[in-house]
Amino acid sequence: MSRFWSPIVHALSPYVAGEQPRIDNLVKLNTNECPYPPSPAALTAIREAASDALRLYPDPTALELRQAIAADLGLTAEAVFVGNGSDEVLAHAFVALLKQEAPLLYPDISYSFYPTYCRLFEIGAETVSLDAAMRICLEDYDRPCGAIILPNPNAPTGIALPLEAIRQLLLRHADKPVIIDEAYVDFGAESATALIAEHPNLLVIQTFSKSRALAGLRVGFAVGQPHLIEALERVKDSFNSYPLDRLALAGATAAWKDRHWFETHRDLIVASRARLTEALETLGFEVLPSSANFVFARHSARTGADLAAALRARAVLVRHFAKPRIADYLRISIGTQAECDRLVGALTEILAQD
Amino acid sequence: MSRFWSPIVHALSPYVAGEQPRIDNLVKLNTNECPYPPSPAALTAIREAASDALRLYPDPTALELRQAIAADLGLTAEAVFVGNGSDEVLAHAFVALLKQEAPLLYPDISYSFYPTYCRLFEIGAETVSLDAAMRICLEDYDRPCGAIILPNPNAPTGIALPLEAIRQLLLRHADKPVIIDEAYVDFGAESATALIAEHPNLLVIQTFSKSRALAGLRVGFAVGQPHLIEALERVKDSFNSYPLDRLALAGATAAWKDRHWFETHRDLIVASRARLTEALETLGFEVLPSSANFVFARHSARTGADLAAALRARAVLVRHFAKPRIADYLRISIGTQAECDRLVGALTEILAQD
Repeated sequence: MSRFWSPIVHALSPYVAGEQPRIDNLVKLNTNECPYPPSPAALTAIREAASDALRLYPDPTALELRQAIAADLGLTAEAVFVGNGSDEVLAHAFVALLKQEAPLLYPDISYSFYPTYCRLFEIGAETVSLDAAMRICLEDYDRPCGAIILPNPNAPTGIALPLEAIRQLLLRHADKPVIIDEAYVDFGAESATALIAEHPNLLVIQTFSKSRALAGLRVGFAVGQPHLIEALERVKDSFNSYPLDRLALAGATAAWKDRHWFETHRDLIVASRARLTEALETLGFEVLPSSANFVFARHSARTGADLAAALRARAVLVRHFAKPRIADYLRISIGTQAECDRLVGALTEILAQD
Repeated sequence: MSRFWSPIVHALSPYVAGEQPRIDNLVKLNTNECPYPPSPAALTAIREAASDALRLYPDPTALELRQAIAADLGLTAEAVFVGNGSDEVLAHAFVALLKQEAPLLYPDISYSFYPTYCRLFEIGAETVSLDAAMRICLEDYDRPCGAIILPNPNAPTGIALPLEAIRQLLLRHADKPVIIDEAYVDFGAESATALIAEHPNLLVIQTFSKSRALAGLRVGFAVGQPHLIEALERVKDSFNSYPLDRLALAGATAAWKDRHWFETHRDLIVASRARLTEALETLGFEVLPSSANFVFARHSARTGADLAAALRARAVLVRHFAKPRIADYLRISIGTQAECDRLVGALTEILAQD
């Protein structure tokens, strides 16, 4: 606290990211990073961009990267916005599209940055409860509102909605901005980017942090009709003209174009998820059906907090949220086979101690 | 325009960055970049950081970089905040410290991003006129206000205030946040970082874009007492947890530590500025006394717009602001000796055509 703070600063309760500790021989399954190194083409492009040209500002329009993304989606660059991780893209979207007179709607169990943005930008919001099976029920969104944001698949549950359900939501709220936050979509959900041409109210947000193994590069993007993208650009150009440095632009463009790397590693993670789910169920866990690069699971006999602490003592990090409805669960990122084995081994030990 | 935009988006008039055109054999003196390549140590550090570790999020606290900066200033890391260019640092500071009940004060001729931030964040502001010699007169700031921001040296004039004048300003406004924006301080002004220990209301903002030749890396920082830094952190952690990617952290840390590169290239630019000023005066320009890596100059016989266009036709880019009081001036970044020679040659040609 300080008398020099703006009034708004006192009211903030910042997002708390998963910890990045320095522990030897750590199995780090707490922040949904990719367990495999990124595309070698991306690393090569970055090394080449580490040149004398760093003295010059980057392209503020990030045109080459936007064109690469747009081309794959059958769109033009005017339909693509890029930012410093999908968190920055989300932040601009909250200001540009979700701050309306009527309240914003999002699920009660969801990405915990959403309420943080609402506090920072003073956006009125109402949460909509997941059902008893932790699923988003879209009919519950048929209520007065100014805008809607949903992750698909949802986080931290990992449960996805089918594309047809998203289409119905867009039609029922055709006069309001609807954002589908697809940070985890590549691991098994259907992307709503297919619906952009027909739905002027749809913005889709994705990231290079998960399925492109580039959490350390900070690149995310939004896709939507150009009039929505223009709103994001107006906010971005009122905030920071060049949020992506020359290295991030080069690396992300090369990573995006390496389709083979992307498909191979996505398939590895999906296969590991199936094996891990089975192993957890054998240990007595209930595992929600995941379309993401993590699973959300709870054990009938042990609390989430206990299990997370016992795993941490064995240098295995998972994420636990001490929040209503989900305090019993662990969110476990899908690691390499060796990391999943270490996790299962540690859990076997911990559960045997009962 | 779109019916889906938030009300605030309609009111924005985004900052327009200097252009980054692709013209062969261009002499680019329009965005105050460093004409020399960055420290080789920075490039090496970036190439080493282009590794498998990019799959992992960066350190959200950027501790190593903050410690490096703090150590040189005789402060601790708690006195340093880093962000994605000084523009992002400024943006967070406008929200965290400058958004007060009473209006913010800044010079009428100053960094043109300030009014842009005020519109985005809905901050009431009043401008204070420079005097006839284009100088900031600090006694004119003795009026009711909630906060003050000043560039030192000012942009685009390049004129610096002495440290003692800043100290008096801080004392006269001891109950309000005062930000000194030192983007160009290394080229000849005295840094207010020396005043931090004694002034709890002072925040100083600097950048790696100019004197570290890393405009393409997007790194800026703020220095102040920890209670002010905490305000910035609360806003940052409500917006984007990791605005500096792993490459920017590694490159900036190495660049900061390469004191020899910094001093050598700063001295080259200061020497070129003296030569360029003399050459421009010989051509009939009035050149304001610059402590920055640019000069602000006007010619008695030709308008700024005419000269900028004639230079552009000769592939020499300078910055012209079509704004009251400064429309006659050109802002010319200090280039290499060869670039300055090309500029002077082109101006000689243009002026000979009268």
